[in-house]
Amino acid sequence: MRTRFQLGLDDLRQRLLRMGGLAEQAVDRARQAYVDRDLTRCQMVLEGEGLINQAEREIDEAAFDMLAMQQPMAVDLRFILAVTKINADLERVGDQAVNIAERVMDMVELPAADLPVDIARMGTAVSAMVRRALESFIEGKVELAQAVLEMDNVIDRMRDDAFIQLVKTMNERPEAVRQALDALLVARNLERVADHATNIAEDVIFWVQGSDVRHNVHPETEDQDSSRPTTRASGV
Amino acid sequence: MRTRFQLGLDDLRQRLLRMGGLAEQAVDRARQAYVDRDLTRCQMVLEGEGLINQAEREIDEAAFDMLAMQQPMAVDLRFILAVTKINADLERVGDQAVNIAERVMDMVELPAADLPVDIARMGTAVSAMVRRALESFIEGKVELAQAVLEMDNVIDRMRDDAFIQLVKTMNERPEAVRQALDALLVARNLERVADHATNIAEDVIFWVQGSDVRHNVHPETEDQDSSRPTTRASGV
Repeated sequence: MRTRFQLGLDDLRQRLLRMGGLAEQAVDRARQAYVDRDLTRCQMVLEGEGLINQAEREIDEAAFDMLAMQQPMAVDLRFILAVTKINADLERVGDQAVNIAERVMDMVELPAADLPVDIARMGTAVSAMVRRALESFIEGKVELAQAVLEMDNVIDRMRDDAFIQLVKTMNERPEAVRQALDALLVARNLERVADHATNIAEDVIFWVQGSDVRHNVHPETEDQDSSRPTTRASGV
Repeated sequence: MRTRFQLGLDDLRQRLLRMGGLAEQAVDRARQAYVDRDLTRCQMVLEGEGLINQAEREIDEAAFDMLAMQQPMAVDLRFILAVTKINADLERVGDQAVNIAERVMDMVELPAADLPVDIARMGTAVSAMVRRALESFIEGKVELAQAVLEMDNVIDRMRDDAFIQLVKTMNERPEAVRQALDALLVARNLERVADHATNIAEDVIFWVQGSDVRHNVHPETEDQDSSRPTTRASGV
């Protein structure tokens, strides 16, 4: 029975990783679509959303079945709850990729404008965050998750810079207002992806610290649990 | 033992409602702060965030304890999972209120501009959505939750209108670019609050339909569960 349960946990982990792969791919495609003004990639992102939503439902159901199957031990319970939360964040990463693709579709209708903002670089950094957050989940390592939390500050600075530069552009170049606004909203979507990566990293810490506590045979006190980071970065 | 478990469920429900009250209050205060250009209310929203984050942690822990305490039946399991998801959404509603308060703090530094957008009305509609979503949770009624999903379309239209009008303003009145941008971002934050209310309504449906299925002694098939609405509205 225990073995079947363990197989179930492995399956859940694999499913979540595949879901993570889909979400990461969506962000990469959306970033590339922005850089190349590429409607085909936008379309791929929109079409991919259905797959991500389906994966989310299946993972939720699998987690539900695991919880219903037998009474999981504390560490497994934390793991399963972390999976359901990470699952929801990954689905929203997919939503943000869709938002970016929709922005790009708006942009492509307008004349190209040279803008003082490096969306490609920001997009690459954000994709790296999502990847690292998933790695911290695979490895179950708090240090990797902590690194993701630190990267979030870098993204917030990039978003602030983009914001300042683009508002300046809107003020000085009325003909580029709409393009600058599109870029600003894309920067904001990327920042939200980074927020979701941060949430994932926090959930990994919650899960791993729970299991550490258990492995060290310490009682779980309120105090220990309040060490869970709670600063969910909030955007512009 | 069953009674203690039932008391635990009641406690969880009460905690989530209090959390919902805090999140709703934060949105109301942020809306009012926008309308009155009121820095005191902004400060209240920022200070309230800590309480909301604390409530989120406590609810997560309580849900965890309920799951660990004994093997819940399917309907209770769905309820507890719905609570953890709604909890996460309410915390993010609080984040959006903070974002709005920060925008208002930026706005107040600038000369007041007359803008072609009714943020107050949009804010009131969004607050009503959050309240209805919580009501659908209290009552456990799919119809109420469905009404929330329909309201989301209204909010999306309001946001689209605001977007169009404000881009026009930015194009025509360069001196009001920054104020228009602030208003646009506030509209976007409100739309995200509406998205969270939508998520909450979906989680209520998931919970209630699960329990209906169980009460009717139908086996839970993939098919039945795919009736769970999955369109999580995605923003600009």
